[in-house]
Amino acid sequence: MQLAGISHCAESADTAILADHQVLMRLRTALDGVQQVELIYGDMYLWQAGTPLQQVYLQPTLATQAQQYWTLPVTVPTNRLIYAFKLTDLNGATIGYGDDGFFDDTVANWATTGHYFHLPYLHVSDAELPPAWVKSTVWYQIFPERFANGDVSNDPQNTQPWGQGPVKTDSFYGGDLRGIIDHLDDLADLGINGLYLCPIFTSPSNHKYDTLDHFEIDPHFGTKQDFQELVDGAHARGMHVMLDAVFNHFGAASPQWQDVVKNGAKSRFADWFHIHDWPVGRDQQTGTLNYETFGTTASMPKLKTQNPAVRDYLIEITTYWLSQLDIDAWRFDVADEVDHGTWRAICAALRAVKPDVYLLGEAWHSSPSLIGNGQFDAVMNYPLTRPILALFNHELTLKDYVGKTNLQLTQYPRPNQQVMLNALDTHDTARAITVMGNQPQRLQAALTLMMLLPGSPCIYYGTEIGLPGGPDPDNRRCMSWQPAPVTTEMYGFVRALLVWRRQQTEFLATSALSWQIEGDCLVLIRQNDDQTVTGTFNLGTTAQTIANDGMTVLAVGQQGQQLAAGGFSLQVQ
Amino acid sequence: MQLAGISHCAESADTAILADHQVLMRLRTALDGVQQVELIYGDMYLWQAGTPLQQVYLQPTLATQAQQYWTLPVTVPTNRLIYAFKLTDLNGATIGYGDDGFFDDTVANWATTGHYFHLPYLHVSDAELPPAWVKSTVWYQIFPERFANGDVSNDPQNTQPWGQGPVKTDSFYGGDLRGIIDHLDDLADLGINGLYLCPIFTSPSNHKYDTLDHFEIDPHFGTKQDFQELVDGAHARGMHVMLDAVFNHFGAASPQWQDVVKNGAKSRFADWFHIHDWPVGRDQQTGTLNYETFGTTASMPKLKTQNPAVRDYLIEITTYWLSQLDIDAWRFDVADEVDHGTWRAICAALRAVKPDVYLLGEAWHSSPSLIGNGQFDAVMNYPLTRPILALFNHELTLKDYVGKTNLQLTQYPRPNQQVMLNALDTHDTARAITVMGNQPQRLQAALTLMMLLPGSPCIYYGTEIGLPGGPDPDNRRCMSWQPAPVTTEMYGFVRALLVWRRQQTEFLATSALSWQIEGDCLVLIRQNDDQTVTGTFNLGTTAQTIANDGMTVLAVGQQGQQLAAGGFSLQVQ
Repeated sequence: MQLAGISHCAESADTAILADHQVLMRLRTALDGVQQVELIYGDMYLWQAGTPLQQVYLQPTLATQAQQYWTLPVTVPTNRLIYAFKLTDLNGATIGYGDDGFFDDTVANWATTGHYFHLPYLHVSDAELPPAWVKSTVWYQIFPERFANGDVSNDPQNTQPWGQGPVKTDSFYGGDLRGIIDHLDDLADLGINGLYLCPIFTSPSNHKYDTLDHFEIDPHFGTKQDFQELVDGAHARGMHVMLDAVFNHFGAASPQWQDVVKNGAKSRFADWFHIHDWPVGRDQQTGTLNYETFGTTASMPKLKTQNPAVRDYLIEITTYWLSQLDIDAWRFDVADEVDHGTWRAICAALRAVKPDVYLLGEAWHSSPSLIGNGQFDAVMNYPLTRPILALFNHELTLKDYVGKTNLQLTQYPRPNQQVMLNALDTHDTARAITVMGNQPQRLQAALTLMMLLPGSPCIYYGTEIGLPGGPDPDNRRCMSWQPAPVTTEMYGFVRALLVWRRQQTEFLATSALSWQIEGDCLVLIRQNDDQTVTGTFNLGTTAQTIANDGMTVLAVGQQGQQLAAGGFSLQVQ
Repeated sequence: MQLAGISHCAESADTAILADHQVLMRLRTALDGVQQVELIYGDMYLWQAGTPLQQVYLQPTLATQAQQYWTLPVTVPTNRLIYAFKLTDLNGATIGYGDDGFFDDTVANWATTGHYFHLPYLHVSDAELPPAWVKSTVWYQIFPERFANGDVSNDPQNTQPWGQGPVKTDSFYGGDLRGIIDHLDDLADLGINGLYLCPIFTSPSNHKYDTLDHFEIDPHFGTKQDFQELVDGAHARGMHVMLDAVFNHFGAASPQWQDVVKNGAKSRFADWFHIHDWPVGRDQQTGTLNYETFGTTASMPKLKTQNPAVRDYLIEITTYWLSQLDIDAWRFDVADEVDHGTWRAICAALRAVKPDVYLLGEAWHSSPSLIGNGQFDAVMNYPLTRPILALFNHELTLKDYVGKTNLQLTQYPRPNQQVMLNALDTHDTARAITVMGNQPQRLQAALTLMMLLPGSPCIYYGTEIGLPGGPDPDNRRCMSWQPAPVTTEMYGFVRALLVWRRQQTEFLATSALSWQIEGDCLVLIRQNDDQTVTGTFNLGTTAQTIANDGMTVLAVGQQGQQLAAGGFSLQVQ
């Protein structure tokens, strides 16, 4: 028996609590080495009183480059579980695996309590189940300065004509909250039911990640009354609203940092930052800053979030918008560089105000450490979406794409996986269509593939018209309203895709997921007892023959059983 | 390259923060498949600005039955780290391994940020480093009713003569706090510097795990003044004091449960328990209880710790004894069956009162889920100590012992591993000497082996005189004071061992650990740059020739290079 690669950890993502009395049991093995995995399980107290343990087979599910995952939902009537695994290899050899490692498959060993893993008591509260509405949500990310200018009276002095390029880091175009309000019906028509707004608080920049006053709307964006109207209008249309805040660092122009600059060690904010020496600044000889920053940027002093006064301030900010303006979600910028203790404190305070608030952290890598334990519901899921672009750019083999995608799909407990923010592009990346050589068909294929994966998908504004853009600041071009978005071919495709996605919310969150590689075609299959959805993507350079058994929901380049190079097809049966 | 078994998770026990700017990097591979592991690492921002990444080799350290662990402490000057691993197999083939899985060892891949794992920002606060005093502590667990009767005036009416057996579940012998106070000097002489007392609060039983009033000392044990004298006396002798509480369930006689029984759904404690139906009781036909309990015991109704009123009450109890009586540590019974959210709330409140409080959870299995994330410093480490008894009982091969022990040594971040409560026996188990066939030499060998392992060792009262006892209640016999413990051969051995253990605290917490199996001898080696400590244990049936290079600290059955069957030797060089 090849033991390497066999692993399981109790009370981890390997035992995700799905609901009261239900856990998703999971084990890893090497690829192709194991024929069968049995779960031997029961309630320890009942077992010791004479009730036999039960046994059931795990199912092989996702495979990464190195590992086969075996899973099964298990019902736990008493909420208490002891369990161990009995593995059978390809030669029929068997072995037991449990809390103290591997043991011979003997009656005496199976009678030994110390060999078993324990879920001592399943508390559904510990699952920290994300709010149910999120997995039904399709987000639309808005960079407010560039979405729509609904009120020219609040434009900055240096406002440029709408859409005039090139976009520079300090350009202003006059986008505002009124512009968003004006287009709520359009967004509802597109199929959007979640608005994710980049920062809207007072700030000197166009991106407003360098906040001056977290309690006020930037005057160029509008007023608090405008924002209330936006929230109410969104809610009236069944849309949730998410705001964005930066708590890893403050801008150098913030009143707190300016007080530190002015008053030095005597500032009442002296302990709000990580300052090593006074006065704050750069060493003349070495060029080293004597305070911590975001990256190496002097103008972004890092907040000392461990300071209780800072934590209280951040809690005051976030609960204010939640309780007073009735927003539904917070997205936290650079969440991964803030200490976990701070997130536990902030998230607890927010959930106390609104139990079904959605809390999202920014990260660029796999971040299971930010999920659960009183922290976020989800993180931005770049590691899941980045390979999609690489796939359609032919930078990744189909096999590697599947392996890497499956790896990401195993990183989080299933309930969290269902609410990860999946975005092909954001204000921080080049636009997907541009990354993929400005080929609209690739964008459509990539969107379709993303919509078939578990998670809460997010469309960056302008995607519905194929708005292009390279890296920041070019990825923040003005939304184009002429011709009307609805008249474009891309709009029709995106709308159809979103309508279908929202119809299939529950199915796509929970159904089984598997892959097939058929020639140059990548086939993604989602399946439950009632329905099978198949996405087929031709990554080759010639037409491929594909199965065409079900009802075609969406297709590009398909004629009957022929799928053109670059074409794709979404079928339901 | 065999990929199965290669695994690492960022921001987990694989990247334990040891101190500010220092992390212990760890990777798992299959046994014997990998020749070399390089860590490629640096600060992402500095790298992107042109500073090359660094590279360094991990060291092979512990091996379990299935996996080789590779580790290295890494200094992180800027607190930010990206990193990936470059593995070389026995054939010289290389591969990269990072956040998105495995990648070919090419220049282009090593230049791709997405391939790297991230430690976005090391906050030493997130390490939740346990209090420094614990790793220097040797605990002595006292079952107060059986340790010493210092005040006959407070004896229960049905008190039996001291030491008269057999011990029954409802026996009373009159042990009390005064008895402990009287023997503080004796315990100090033995080498003890930590007192772990089983519950002392008002309760009808001898074990007092069925508390009636968590704010009062049981009158048969003494008064609050007695307890204050005990704490002060301990502190004056450099001893810390740990109390024990049960928050998973209350006793049926508790005023809260009695109120529920009396007033039913109208009780103000109705929501303090998990009650499914009224009135509380057992279904006449099915025999099923209509409320949750500890195990299947009707007299132990399970607390609904998610209820904020319950949490507040538990916080009030625990902070009271910490702030008013100045205790140093809490041990929580059945900690693994209480929800994690409750522990986060209680532990935060306790650390706010006394930052260096030691918080210990009871569990019987590997429990990484109870450590960190605002929870416990440590759990009771039965999975580490149980195999020691099996080893000396010849129930485990030397190889399996090493594999299972190493598995347990990899379960927790190193700083927590150093403060795990390692006990061969407790009030909940048969006594080690009895489990090991009442052979004093086996107990001495087992204690010696345990003292060589990382953790905070704990001696159950009476161990120093070889007090025997089978399972509960026989494991709770009265301590024997005649002849004086100090006159026994076991006492001399234990005292010598503890004196040496306490001298070697820092060394044993941090030095490298490795094993050799030489014939029938198990050899445990602890080593740093300055010193090597070797424990050699002859598990065979004949004398073995051993190395005898260093200074012998303790030995049984050793004559020069000859180690008798069952003998052991502890050497320092």
